[in-house]
Amino acid sequence: MPDPILLRKKIRETSPLIHNITNVVVTNFTANGLYALGASPVMAYALEEVKDMAKIAGALVLNIGTLSKQTNEAMLAAGHSANEQGIPVFLDPVGAGATPFRTESAKTLLKELNISVIRGNAGEIANLSSSPVAMRGVDSTAELKDAKKTAESTALEWQTIVCMTGEQDIITDGRSTFIVSNGTEMLTKITGAGCLLTSVAAAFSSVEKNALEAVTAACAFYGASAEAAAERQSFSGPGHFQVHLLDMIDQISDEDLQNRIQIHKEEE
Amino acid sequence: MPDPILLRKKIRETSPLIHNITNVVVTNFTANGLYALGASPVMAYALEEVKDMAKIAGALVLNIGTLSKQTNEAMLAAGHSANEQGIPVFLDPVGAGATPFRTESAKTLLKELNISVIRGNAGEIANLSSSPVAMRGVDSTAELKDAKKTAESTALEWQTIVCMTGEQDIITDGRSTFIVSNGTEMLTKITGAGCLLTSVAAAFSSVEKNALEAVTAACAFYGASAEAAAERQSFSGPGHFQVHLLDMIDQISDEDLQNRIQIHKEEE
Amino acid sequence: MPDPILLRKKIRETSPLIHNITNVVVTNFTANGLYALGASPVMAYALEEVKDMAKIAGALVLNIGTLSKQTNEAMLAAGHSANEQGIPVFLDPVGAGATPFRTESAKTLLKELNISVIRGNAGEIANLSSSPVAMRGVDSTAELKDAKKTAESTALEWQTIVCMTGEQDIITDGRSTFIVSNGTEMLTKITGAGCLLTSVAAAFSSVEKNALEAVTAACAFYGASAEAAAERQSFSGPGHFQVHLLDMIDQISDEDLQNRIQIHKEEE
Repeated sequence: MPDPILLRKKIRETSPLIHNITNVVVTNFTANGLYALGASPVMAYALEEVKDMAKIAGALVLNIGTLSKQTNEAMLAAGHSANEQGIPVFLDPVGAGATPFRTESAKTLLKELNISVIRGNAGEIANLSSSPVAMRGVDSTAELKDAKKTAESTALEWQTIVCMTGEQDIITDGRSTFIVSNGTEMLTKITGAGCLLTSVAAAFSSVEKNALEAVTAACAFYGASAEAAAERQSFSGPGHFQVHLLDMIDQISDEDLQNRIQIHKEEE
Repeated sequence: MPDPILLRKKIRETSPLIHNITNVVVTNFTANGLYALGASPVMAYALEEVKDMAKIAGALVLNIGTLSKQTNEAMLAAGHSANEQGIPVFLDPVGAGATPFRTESAKTLLKELNISVIRGNAGEIANLSSSPVAMRGVDSTAELKDAKKTAESTALEWQTIVCMTGEQDIITDGRSTFIVSNGTEMLTKITGAGCLLTSVAAAFSSVEKNALEAVTAACAFYGASAEAAAERQSFSGPGHFQVHLLDMIDQISDEDLQNRIQIHKEEE
Repeated sequence: MPDPILLRKKIRETSPLIHNITNVVVTNFTANGLYALGASPVMAYALEEVKDMAKIAGALVLNIGTLSKQTNEAMLAAGHSANEQGIPVFLDPVGAGATPFRTESAKTLLKELNISVIRGNAGEIANLSSSPVAMRGVDSTAELKDAKKTAESTALEWQTIVCMTGEQDIITDGRSTFIVSNGTEMLTKITGAGCLLTSVAAAFSSVEKNALEAVTAACAFYGASAEAAAERQSFSGPGHFQVHLLDMIDQISDEDLQNRIQIHKEEE
């Protein structure tokens, strides 16, 4: 079973280098979140260096939130380099579906590279699928069932793991599926909550070869930290929530984690 | 009369998409501020997608704070697309006057596009005017009078609404003028306070066709939230002020807003 | 002797414009830190304006954290412009050694420009030296001695001042050397702590011609503010530490500074 406590410990002990090619909105928050986790973030975008950087990283994150043609080229170069070294590559298809450019860019990365994990919300994942079932989130039981189908078919279609996050997180390789029920609504009130989760999941994956379990553990760890952050607020509101979230990623205890973790393995 | 309470309610109910092409310093703060308000921020800069994104937005914000030739082209493409759809376009001429490149870039956007609103400080606005009167802020009564003249003549010159912010905010189309006296000096101690106001005003404008009233309401809403944030500080200082400001944009009550709002319509 | 209190006062009185060409991770934090100090930050990257901006600045900061070919050209143009005007130029060689591109880019800037000060950690400085002695930080007395030798030889090699920061900060022109023992481990838990120090040191240097003393004073001021921030935390953790650090840069009193400052001049 996915073990968030053990994997967090491994990250703290080894400080894996996580190479992010990400969007300009979330760069600082992502770097601080990875530091709080105990990983070593590096942001490097230049075509001249991304191959070298990806080679020495524990995982590579490609986030298309503010994509440009240049960044696109850098992502492909970094991705090929990571693939050659057997380093896991995570794709965050921010806004896939919003414009043709985003959808096509995400699909090109999926076609050209060996992507280990796609992490996105229900809409983004559905837009990468040739036969989406659900488009409306995962709030009701029926919606969860449809979302699960879309996540599973997308995973099979692209031969990858899909991590579809929402009120419940669905992590699947198309055959085995985990559901994580941790988290808080506050995560929807700040920018970059999903993007940071992608990078956190990449860090977990850098210390655990079973990517399905690593990503599931990351979702539970992140959701539990967010719950603790939301409870700890002296002043409530999205400004303080961000600050508390970084604190709790650093400080949540093993006991607190243990009590909060809600991971469910679906029967096959 | 401008109604900040009603317009804030409309934003929360409809979550308008606000497309920002903005500077790298304030991207995260702007996105979080718009989320706190209840709007849906999107940052998209690539020439390949800005036309598509602007088309589906409720308003477009062009902020020249860290302009490049590429961004400049993207702004023109997005602006033309928004103009065709009748979507309001806001210009934040950050640092106009500091270098010829900035001044010229701002003027090119004003010439090529139908700009609904320019939001800047006294110096920036004066640098866009061919006959500026005031250059020194709006601290004394005489200065306020001069600033008002510059704001009004700039509005008429460019056939747009000018929102000149400072200790008092002047919002004018050259004929009708509102003065908003909300705000706190703390807003001058953090980066991006003006930039966020521009995006907040764009969100207000996306739910109210009368742009003069929408922008006036936004200035009052934003200034009142900042006042509440400054009062709420357990620790004073610019670090905590930012955090409280995001909280209060999310949480200020209608009653608190009602009590704080200071909008004055100038006699014509 | 370096006088942090006097120089901070001068910065507050004159609000020097600090022109930063920096990385996308730390842009917001750097701008807010400079505002908190009382300086006027400006970020400008376009080749079309960097010469003009550097000319009117009190100091120029070149930070290679997320370098691109374009930014590289802008750095050279801005640097030449600053050199012509006699404006101090600071180099932050973020990640020098991590990839050949970074190391070469930093060395090119050092060869082409008259760099007043290099501010980096032990590893980064050692990678710019043709005969590094230490590579492991400055934790033990023996390590400090080795680090000092590397800092001094690098300063002589590039005819510049080296500010090598860590548990103790070494500031040297190769002949005279200061050691600053202020700071807190919390500075290693957030992104951009070193980058902000570089910009703070540039601000100190803009009001004091003796760059060795100015940078030493800046290290003591910054380390003392960080100590005060770490002590002041109601919630501990890296999220709150950032917020308190910005507060204390703005608010630390002369008395508190006086009591904390630990500057030691090495015997020659």
